[in-house]
Amino acid sequence: MKQDLDRFMEEKDIDAIWVTGATMNNPDMVYFTGIHHVSYADMLKIRGEEPVLFHTSMEREEAARSGLRTISYSDDYPLSSYYKKSNGNALQAYAMLYTDILTDFGLAEKNISVAGKVELNDRFALLQELQQRLPKAHLSGSFNDSIIHKARLTKSPEEVEHIRQMGKVTTTVVGNVLDLLSTSTVKNKTLLNKDGTPITVGQVKSLIRMWLAKEGSDNPEETIFSIGRDAGVPHNAGNPDSPLELGKTIIFDIFPCETGGGYFYDFTRTWSLGYASDEAQKMYEDVYKVHQTIYKSLKVNAPFKDYQEQTCKLFSEMGYATVMDDPSLTEGYVHSLGHGLGLDVHENPFSGMSAGPRDILHPGVVFTIEPGLYYPSKGMGVRIEDTVYMNEEGKAEILADFPYELVIPVKE
Amino acid sequence: MKQDLDRFMEEKDIDAIWVTGATMNNPDMVYFTGIHHVSYADMLKIRGEEPVLFHTSMEREEAARSGLRTISYSDDYPLSSYYKKSNGNALQAYAMLYTDILTDFGLAEKNISVAGKVELNDRFALLQELQQRLPKAHLSGSFNDSIIHKARLTKSPEEVEHIRQMGKVTTTVVGNVLDLLSTSTVKNKTLLNKDGTPITVGQVKSLIRMWLAKEGSDNPEETIFSIGRDAGVPHNAGNPDSPLELGKTIIFDIFPCETGGGYFYDFTRTWSLGYASDEAQKMYEDVYKVHQTIYKSLKVNAPFKDYQEQTCKLFSEMGYATVMDDPSLTEGYVHSLGHGLGLDVHENPFSGMSAGPRDILHPGVVFTIEPGLYYPSKGMGVRIEDTVYMNEEGKAEILADFPYELVIPVKE
Repeated sequence: MKQDLDRFMEEKDIDAIWVTGATMNNPDMVYFTGIHHVSYADMLKIRGEEPVLFHTSMEREEAARSGLRTISYSDDYPLSSYYKKSNGNALQAYAMLYTDILTDFGLAEKNISVAGKVELNDRFALLQELQQRLPKAHLSGSFNDSIIHKARLTKSPEEVEHIRQMGKVTTTVVGNVLDLLSTSTVKNKTLLNKDGTPITVGQVKSLIRMWLAKEGSDNPEETIFSIGRDAGVPHNAGNPDSPLELGKTIIFDIFPCETGGGYFYDFTRTWSLGYASDEAQKMYEDVYKVHQTIYKSLKVNAPFKDYQEQTCKLFSEMGYATVMDDPSLTEGYVHSLGHGLGLDVHENPFSGMSAGPRDILHPGVVFTIEPGLYYPSKGMGVRIEDTVYMNEEGKAEILADFPYELVIPVKE
Repeated sequence: MKQDLDRFMEEKDIDAIWVTGATMNNPDMVYFTGIHHVSYADMLKIRGEEPVLFHTSMEREEAARSGLRTISYSDDYPLSSYYKKSNGNALQAYAMLYTDILTDFGLAEKNISVAGKVELNDRFALLQELQQRLPKAHLSGSFNDSIIHKARLTKSPEEVEHIRQMGKVTTTVVGNVLDLLSTSTVKNKTLLNKDGTPITVGQVKSLIRMWLAKEGSDNPEETIFSIGRDAGVPHNAGNPDSPLELGKTIIFDIFPCETGGGYFYDFTRTWSLGYASDEAQKMYEDVYKVHQTIYKSLKVNAPFKDYQEQTCKLFSEMGYATVMDDPSLTEGYVHSLGHGLGLDVHENPFSGMSAGPRDILHPGVVFTIEPGLYYPSKGMGVRIEDTVYMNEEGKAEILADFPYELVIPVKE
């Protein structure tokens, strides 16, 4: 949690965190500022001090909404004067500006951890130039191991409420889709629009986008709504032209966030319209069994990857191939059990091969469990996913309830 | 344009461009791949060769939709084997993987330009580690001066069609808002909902988001809908709780993009409900005069910043303060004339102090003109903005028409 940051900084000998970029659609920045319409900003968090937000004069009022101490570049570090000094060279102008800021804040010879979702070409050039100008500063990143992400791993009750609210939004929209499918006309085993044309995956996705927007959420990473063979490839998002045919598995994986890049929810159901083949029914029951077994066995403070191992073992005992035997598998259980989620749809803890000592189900951790089976050669795939909160009492709690039914009755 | 890339690479002695990140909401990547649901990818464009897209096995079908030559990490660079070699150290595993890729593609001693909208903490650490492993490679960024951005500066006819289509979406939604405002009930000089409560800025923005989604577009940077004093601060996005009162200026600045991070449009109108004060009317007419004068004087191959100077001169002659006299101005004409737009809402050419030799109105350039006047102390602001295409015949063309009217008649 945020209050742990100073301690984490001390443990890693980091004197300051410098996050750059906009205060929206920029997870590490939003963590400090909330979501506001500031398109260019820098956040400096010095160990033991409150964060400071730098902004342009035009965006002073949006910056102020963050509640942080704010500094306008125009007042204290006017870019125009740096452009003059650099004869119009943008790189030099910005490097001088940041040299002054870091020096003024006593960081010219300190350890500074950089972050922010930004354009790499600009920032890599700037950091290299800045390192030349401040040879005694230590500017560093950290791969899969940042202290901000370590803080973000455990959620405050307020953060969990944001995620829970997104769970409501998500299941409302999933309910809307269910209503649409179960009330549409059927002809030749295909769902039809009122004008007699087939309802397509693309149409369903358009409606999902509109319904999500109506509920006050964004859909930056799109939605997976894939049917039949496409459902057999985990991240196939679905072919927009595919019609909705009865008796084929549909994987509906939806992961919206609060408008402007806030907290996510992540949720999957597998449906089959009208009826399901025996093979799909069996596979669905097996995935559901694994989902329930894993959910019931989740223990606080356990390494998340233990449950990936358990999932592989369960599927293996049922006779399915798993990534445990072959990491490059494309049929069977082909991915990892789940991932943390919050301001990113994928964040710590991880359960797959990248899992390390950090990926523990501490109280406050929010994560997905999403066992699945994939058989593109059989024209089918099954996944069931919920977002789970390891609460302060150490109990695992699904954050939004929704029925688990494979077969969706349709109008006959 | 894209076909100029090899030439630009040669001019700058760049052997390869390496773009990393997702194939959505990542402008430099989308430029090569189009918008697809690939959450982790690398694109390598070697001079004189076609681009190659690297992807995970799970996302192979989405990657294939790009039409590029694709390589699955799992087939040729299995991450699991690198994790084994690195004893589970993620940074080392990825650094080894990329060392192998760059070496296999003959780039171990070459000039490689990096790009992509990514998390800086991860990538900065990775690039520093990679530079250690490949000491003869030259990994570089470029600040405000990238060759991809140079290619993106001039749009192909196909790209312009994408922007024009977004112009239609934008003006459709602006029309919806106009209909809402002009047909709502008025009481005590305030617009009311059917239930008698005041319509708020927040409600209008929710509807805008929903209407944009319905038209197949995203709104990643939010919308500015600010009234009265808030309209006097250019990037004040509007207070969600503000009611819509008659006789106050409303700045409505809307800049959506194609779903998944495609081409943008950017558009502003200033409205006053029911009537306008004499002062607002005069200011509006002055801004409109400047807008029209500038639009009619745009010449192909002229430096964009010349028109910023002309705009300042025109406003100055009218008696307004401008940024020409004082760059940190907060009342008067306080910003620059406009900016290029495409896969980013702000891209080359620029017209303000960052403008350099690249910021020229070549044929194929798409940019905004958005003169404005801001007086928070008087409780008002005015801006008029259109997106303009300098077409292949060298004529400036507004890409979406919409009336210029300050006063919006309301139901009395």
